[in-house]
Amino acid sequence: MDFSSDTAAPAHPSVLEALAKANEGPAASYGNDAVTAELRGVLENVLETEDFDFWLCASGTASNALALSCFCPPTGAVLCHAGAHIAVDERGAPEFFSGGGKLQLLGGPQGQISEDALRDALARINHDFVHETPAHVLSLTNLTENGTAYPAETVRHYAALAHETGLDVHLDGARLANALVHTGATPAQMSWKAGVDVLCLGLTKTGAIGCEIIILFGGARKKFAELKARAKRSGHMPPKMRFLAAQALAMFEDGLWLDLAATANQRARQVADVLCRKPSTELTQPVHGNEVFVRLDDDLVRRMRDAGATFYPWPDGSYRLVTSWNTPQDTIDALSGLVD
Amino acid sequence: MDFSSDTAAPAHPSVLEALAKANEGPAASYGNDAVTAELRGVLENVLETEDFDFWLCASGTASNALALSCFCPPTGAVLCHAGAHIAVDERGAPEFFSGGGKLQLLGGPQGQISEDALRDALARINHDFVHETPAHVLSLTNLTENGTAYPAETVRHYAALAHETGLDVHLDGARLANALVHTGATPAQMSWKAGVDVLCLGLTKTGAIGCEIIILFGGARKKFAELKARAKRSGHMPPKMRFLAAQALAMFEDGLWLDLAATANQRARQVADVLCRKPSTELTQPVHGNEVFVRLDDDLVRRMRDAGATFYPWPDGSYRLVTSWNTPQDTIDALSGLVD
Amino acid sequence: MDFSSDTAAPAHPSVLEALAKANEGPAASYGNDAVTAELRGVLENVLETEDFDFWLCASGTASNALALSCFCPPTGAVLCHAGAHIAVDERGAPEFFSGGGKLQLLGGPQGQISEDALRDALARINHDFVHETPAHVLSLTNLTENGTAYPAETVRHYAALAHETGLDVHLDGARLANALVHTGATPAQMSWKAGVDVLCLGLTKTGAIGCEIIILFGGARKKFAELKARAKRSGHMPPKMRFLAAQALAMFEDGLWLDLAATANQRARQVADVLCRKPSTELTQPVHGNEVFVRLDDDLVRRMRDAGATFYPWPDGSYRLVTSWNTPQDTIDALSGLVD
Amino acid sequence: MDFSSDTAAPAHPSVLEALAKANEGPAASYGNDAVTAELRGVLENVLETEDFDFWLCASGTASNALALSCFCPPTGAVLCHAGAHIAVDERGAPEFFSGGGKLQLLGGPQGQISEDALRDALARINHDFVHETPAHVLSLTNLTENGTAYPAETVRHYAALAHETGLDVHLDGARLANALVHTGATPAQMSWKAGVDVLCLGLTKTGAIGCEIIILFGGARKKFAELKARAKRSGHMPPKMRFLAAQALAMFEDGLWLDLAATANQRARQVADVLCRKPSTELTQPVHGNEVFVRLDDDLVRRMRDAGATFYPWPDGSYRLVTSWNTPQDTIDALSGLVD
Repeated sequence: MDFSSDTAAPAHPSVLEALAKANEGPAASYGNDAVTAELRGVLENVLETEDFDFWLCASGTASNALALSCFCPPTGAVLCHAGAHIAVDERGAPEFFSGGGKLQLLGGPQGQISEDALRDALARINHDFVHETPAHVLSLTNLTENGTAYPAETVRHYAALAHETGLDVHLDGARLANALVHTGATPAQMSWKAGVDVLCLGLTKTGAIGCEIIILFGGARKKFAELKARAKRSGHMPPKMRFLAAQALAMFEDGLWLDLAATANQRARQVADVLCRKPSTELTQPVHGNEVFVRLDDDLVRRMRDAGATFYPWPDGSYRLVTSWNTPQDTIDALSGLVD
Repeated sequence: MDFSSDTAAPAHPSVLEALAKANEGPAASYGNDAVTAELRGVLENVLETEDFDFWLCASGTASNALALSCFCPPTGAVLCHAGAHIAVDERGAPEFFSGGGKLQLLGGPQGQISEDALRDALARINHDFVHETPAHVLSLTNLTENGTAYPAETVRHYAALAHETGLDVHLDGARLANALVHTGATPAQMSWKAGVDVLCLGLTKTGAIGCEIIILFGGARKKFAELKARAKRSGHMPPKMRFLAAQALAMFEDGLWLDLAATANQRARQVADVLCRKPSTELTQPVHGNEVFVRLDDDLVRRMRDAGATFYPWPDGSYRLVTSWNTPQDTIDALSGLVD
Repeated sequence: MDFSSDTAAPAHPSVLEALAKANEGPAASYGNDAVTAELRGVLENVLETEDFDFWLCASGTASNALALSCFCPPTGAVLCHAGAHIAVDERGAPEFFSGGGKLQLLGGPQGQISEDALRDALARINHDFVHETPAHVLSLTNLTENGTAYPAETVRHYAALAHETGLDVHLDGARLANALVHTGATPAQMSWKAGVDVLCLGLTKTGAIGCEIIILFGGARKKFAELKARAKRSGHMPPKMRFLAAQALAMFEDGLWLDLAATANQRARQVADVLCRKPSTELTQPVHGNEVFVRLDDDLVRRMRDAGATFYPWPDGSYRLVTSWNTPQDTIDALSGLVD
Repeated sequence: MDFSSDTAAPAHPSVLEALAKANEGPAASYGNDAVTAELRGVLENVLETEDFDFWLCASGTASNALALSCFCPPTGAVLCHAGAHIAVDERGAPEFFSGGGKLQLLGGPQGQISEDALRDALARINHDFVHETPAHVLSLTNLTENGTAYPAETVRHYAALAHETGLDVHLDGARLANALVHTGATPAQMSWKAGVDVLCLGLTKTGAIGCEIIILFGGARKKFAELKARAKRSGHMPPKMRFLAAQALAMFEDGLWLDLAATANQRARQVADVLCRKPSTELTQPVHGNEVFVRLDDDLVRRMRDAGATFYPWPDGSYRLVTSWNTPQDTIDALSGLVD
């Protein structure tokens, strides 16, 4: 009964097969290989455009921080939700990669920046007032850290507001597939068609070993050389890049990544439904993806712990339960048995 | 006929098998898993000590820069050879990770710091003279960037000189196995027994997909918490760590890493012997490991290129040919055919 | 009618005289001169202790950032009020000097951290949870950015809480003299006796040209060499240091700094009294020092502007009026004439 | 007999008078004052152009590092002489301000980059080779650290070579006046007319208290906003800027700065002539400015020390003697008495 994190899940078997398949003979290092080239073509289909550059990374933290550091100068700031992963869970990675840039934390319910908070922050940007740190980037997260999904229209609306003020837009998509499945949006609709300049498309939590794709769209492509230089000096230019590309190929084949996310989302829905059979249970966030945030009575928590369930307490007194592509139906059934 | 780099080689099949084996059910993230725990035990055998802490990294650049940043403050410097990988091939990674520390470049033949250069540099350190940047770390590379091996005694001698002056000692072991095979030293003799405080033990070039181990010995273990914090914020704390640990397990099993390095070294020796059959050929460096640095006549170069051989020109007008665990005897034979 | 800032004021004539007096013949550079040595003795009297080291800086931003960077590692955070100068007005200086450390913003009325907010933040520090950024320093500001003064007992109480959790305590004293005058505390009572580890004692706003003193007390003195190295590399080691020391000597002579602050405080009190004669006027902050935060009716604002008064609007819709040692009684009288 | 440094000299009395004159009533902070505005006009005359922006700094280290950080990205390098002040005497300031950029050290006699070394370094720049750090800036120093002057034609020639390769050109002019006096070049001929993009014009060593001017010419002016932001966050935006501007005004009035440098240069010439009366004396560098580098016999050194002369030994076994605007003829005479 592992509900600790989707990063505790194993990789999907197709990923392992893809690695083995990629492991044939010599191949050029640093991304100049045939597997990475093949991925380029696949991404064109997935993203419905050819107007992008991309880079592969084994870590979501690195992916976000590298992306942000190309758009936020050391003297600038990034707007993000107060609960964003980049603010709370990355030990200062954006500050480190940007050379001392700042995060400006915005509020809003359900882990989503409220429109008021965004408009307020944008209105206060004054590049001529040298004492304050002006925002250069808006960073959104979808699925949010509270497990909720921004609809594509909201992303588009917020991106438009940001662009009007001269900001670039970053999307932390560590759980993008979960958000796509929930909203029904395509990757294109949720990214470049919505005005996203740089997308961090995560596959690790979806079912890879460790594979994140930084994608620069349109005008943001002018940052590609800088992105590579920053990747190199931060140790995110693995020589045997083909093994990152192979993971992505496996995940995109026949839409596997979306299927896996659909399973994970469904399991989370089941977890919520099971737990809510207890009247004392209270969902603190709507369940859009593969995360359930919930208040539970102490007795149930004890029984779950005794049965070997792993899950984390949340700062507000609730609990977070995370499902993955690999959460078995059996686990749901076992949980169900504990509730009644 | 790939002599471009040992990073162009595929991974050894055992590594792929180990990944598949590790891919069973949920496992705790960030290194708190059973595979990583198993690796701890194996490393104790390999290193003949229990007095160490370690961290896993997919990138050699990151491994070096993380290690150095724990020992060199932003106001300090690292002593290294002018041709060291950290100086020449890492796009400023040590400067980035250390927050603006400096590299102080020392000379010496065959890619090795000369004792005079080292003594000179050590003698000039003056922590009381605030204008200059005092060295805090001596960084050695074994195998060096010129393909030569420091004997363990030299490492021990240099480390002792460094320690006398209050420096810590870092060993960049991206090709450590090749140096061990050549010198006959054990990992322990080449590292902690020689006075190395922090070892970057590379397995990627030896035959892994991407796996480097940062090892803190003895007193350097007090830096372990800082190392982890720096790894986290630089995106080098992959959640599914077990897949890094699994690679290392495969490489250490029955001394596979040393066997693979022995093969690579032997192939390099063969390449050198074959090429030296031409009187115009001149080895510019002794061949200790899996790299051959050599002057070749233009005609031979042309014939090799025409036959599809890949290898890089070197700044001094020579060429570098690199072999790997996977360089086939056929390739040597084909090269031989071109020479005569 | 200049109420724009105390930095708009000229320097006190004694400061200019002290510069002229210090300008005799050659003197050792970088603080090894007789004037700086003399200041050491004077500081011992002012601070009632010999257990400190100090450094001189022309800029308050640099003074704070240098001080903080010696106590907050790149992987750590500083606790401060959400409205603190270091958070709002220094363009990311603490992040820059610390190599990417974070500020963790705490709330509380009147520009002062509330005890609840502080206790909460301290309770959440977990050095073992590598993903989050643990606080290493508590930074207080006295006079606060809202013109209010922490009593020395509060500083002592907060410092004790911080020390219990292993934090060091920094006091931004850009307007320390104003706070001392208001509270009646001595410099010692407000700093080392209250548990402050590092004090930034500002004299620029009090009446110098540009002179701030970073003072390390007791155990914090072990950071002195690091402080000097960081000062050097950030360009805050002016060769002709005697001219900074001379300013401080002038300010401390016969308690001039406190006299000047008393005048400035009194003028602010007068400004508040004058403005409050209008029933529509509302003080938004108590007036403890030389700053008045006040809501004014639009008509009065217009009349003041027309009469040439300079003062800044505040983000909450109020206005800030700042007095200095050099605000003439005439100016108060002229303002008084506008109100009636 | 102070020959320790020109920074040991007092300020010229005109500078003190200018401070007193500037100290009248309130003035806008951060450079928006009348004195700074007046300096703008004076600089237009001194520089024979209106096509520049400028910033004032109290420190030469800060001036250089701020200037360089606007032109060298964290992923780039600065070409400079191996003995340049930025390389040897600034405790890593360029690395700190640039966020981890590198200095690439070039050789050449008399503290001057040789044309071969420069052409070599320029030829090796390859922005497409991500592993190496490409140079973005050429930094020249005039007067050099060895007390020699580049003729304006050499600066122009080197700048042209740098521009052809896409580099910007920085001139460290901490002792610019001394170089101008020696070469007879005008400030314009030595800077923008020679292709210098950013000039650090030092007045501290010439006779100010602490005053350096960063000047962006022509196309480099697009960096002015960034320069100010970086100045702010590094604590180099003193609120009472008028006191920096006043120093510069005094120095430029009636060409005082050049007169003072002429005196200093003449005194150095006298020192060299006096010392060379001893046959054992050997000048190790030609004397172009206010510095004498010289080998002396031990007996003379002892006699000089005994007579209270202060001067520093140089790493190559020679000695450095520095004169200033304030070195009295008496001191030369006293030295003369020691030699015979």
